[in-house]
Amino acid sequence: MLTQVGLIGLGKMGFPLAQNIQDQGMDVLAYDVSPEVLQKAADAGIPTANTITELTEKLTPRRVIWMMVPAGPIVDETIEKVVPHLSQGDILIDGGNSFYKDTFRRYQALKEKGIDYLDCGTSGGVSGARYGVCAMIGGLAEVFSYCEDLFRKISVENGYVYAGQPSSGHYVKMVHNGIEYGMMQAIAEGFELMERSDFDMDLASIAKVWNHGSVIRSWLIELTENALKKDPHLEQIKGIMHASGEGLWTVQTALNEGVPTPVIALSLMMRHRSQTDDTFSGKVVAALRNEFGGHKVEKAD
Amino acid sequence: MLTQVGLIGLGKMGFPLAQNIQDQGMDVLAYDVSPEVLQKAADAGIPTANTITELTEKLTPRRVIWMMVPAGPIVDETIEKVVPHLSQGDILIDGGNSFYKDTFRRYQALKEKGIDYLDCGTSGGVSGARYGVCAMIGGLAEVFSYCEDLFRKISVENGYVYAGQPSSGHYVKMVHNGIEYGMMQAIAEGFELMERSDFDMDLASIAKVWNHGSVIRSWLIELTENALKKDPHLEQIKGIMHASGEGLWTVQTALNEGVPTPVIALSLMMRHRSQTDDTFSGKVVAALRNEFGGHKVEKAD
Repeated sequence: MLTQVGLIGLGKMGFPLAQNIQDQGMDVLAYDVSPEVLQKAADAGIPTANTITELTEKLTPRRVIWMMVPAGPIVDETIEKVVPHLSQGDILIDGGNSFYKDTFRRYQALKEKGIDYLDCGTSGGVSGARYGVCAMIGGLAEVFSYCEDLFRKISVENGYVYAGQPSSGHYVKMVHNGIEYGMMQAIAEGFELMERSDFDMDLASIAKVWNHGSVIRSWLIELTENALKKDPHLEQIKGIMHASGEGLWTVQTALNEGVPTPVIALSLMMRHRSQTDDTFSGKVVAALRNEFGGHKVEKAD
Repeated sequence: MLTQVGLIGLGKMGFPLAQNIQDQGMDVLAYDVSPEVLQKAADAGIPTANTITELTEKLTPRRVIWMMVPAGPIVDETIEKVVPHLSQGDILIDGGNSFYKDTFRRYQALKEKGIDYLDCGTSGGVSGARYGVCAMIGGLAEVFSYCEDLFRKISVENGYVYAGQPSSGHYVKMVHNGIEYGMMQAIAEGFELMERSDFDMDLASIAKVWNHGSVIRSWLIELTENALKKDPHLEQIKGIMHASGEGLWTVQTALNEGVPTPVIALSLMMRHRSQTDDTFSGKVVAALRNEFGGHKVEKAD
């Protein structure tokens, strides 16, 4: 039975995950590139390794090492550094938000070296990582089974699923986030309609009542209530909506597969729109209205 | 204290609402234009009146009469029939999905006649009407207070809110439904991405896990799980998405007020698109590609 997990990456998600694993009675051994972060973890009672060599030496084969690092080249770099220290059958888990096609490529490359690979999309935010995630896992069934106890323990009750073949966990997580973009944009548009109406509404109390018996009751509406209670007109927040990649991948995948996802695509584009003060397309339309109709344009400063 | 409620309309929502009111220990007296429906209600132990005259005569002023009839002219017709039998200060409640501007017009017209008017948007579907709704109420504060006990009793715990001035309850309900359109479309697009992927996924189990700890956990995802459990590929259902007006009003309001609601608008248009087998715009694009590039068109049958 799996009792020991290596963890690489003690960032926003990795740190609380290490604590979560410990609370569940499993041994965790953590490594991070930053000595300061490692010290902070040690101070919090998390056993640490100062190097990847130390990490892999202190773990017993069949090793299970969870990578909680940002999507992209850092995942490849981490794999490159770890693999020379691993034995046949050891298991690497990518618990981050990697693009599923990268995940499949990594799975295949590692398979040739005899290293097993699981992809685990996790949702629930920082508090989820600490107290129970929602986990969507892809990989070979045998490898999943070997690690299933770990997934069960770090998740909320009924909060993990074996999604299927390698990379399917990250695919499901990607789609989850695409849906999240659309749901958030829909909620946001509705609240703007109420904020800008002639009615003087207490939006927090409306968000609250919607979570009691309505069709749209959801965790996102609960979070909306929290935010509106703190700041009824959200005066302390700019409406700039950042995005971290999963929505983009969802839309790219939809385009590649020919699946129409207009609402998710538009939610992503509204985020992009929010990131610029002005648009060139706006200038073009203003210029054209001026050209054909003499409509006044507003001069740039 | 309010102990007695008249109810006009025993349809899909009115019938269970009558039972709900009774279960809460209030007296209900119900009327419906259909004698068959009235008989069915009587058989179910709901006290009934055979005419509007009988209904109003059996209620004690300050009467409270809840109308649960379809939005549109039927509301005006019902008001016209009832008002001659009412006394100053009696209260009519429109518990249906009326357009908020119609509601405000009715409120004003009735005010001139000394009749009070409340608008109550309700959510929660048929089971909500039976066991506890989510209620959003607009109207004068004094009139709301007179009826508050009724709203508290027919709602789930914390499930009613005084939204504010007359017609604000229907405004909030309209926006609620607009959000619902967008959330449903986003969820639907995500599930299509999984259904049409190369992975062989058990979508019901994915919907289930998303309700345990994920950011998008919601009642709508629970309903998605239910539907997918019964029919994993939804083979028994056509993808025709009907709409009953609230989404349209949301978008009309957004356009009138100059509030951008692209995702809600597009969700509505996707419903319209689903209601036709083919489109003229599709024919136009196919024809143009043929005209300029000789691209093959598919012949109509």
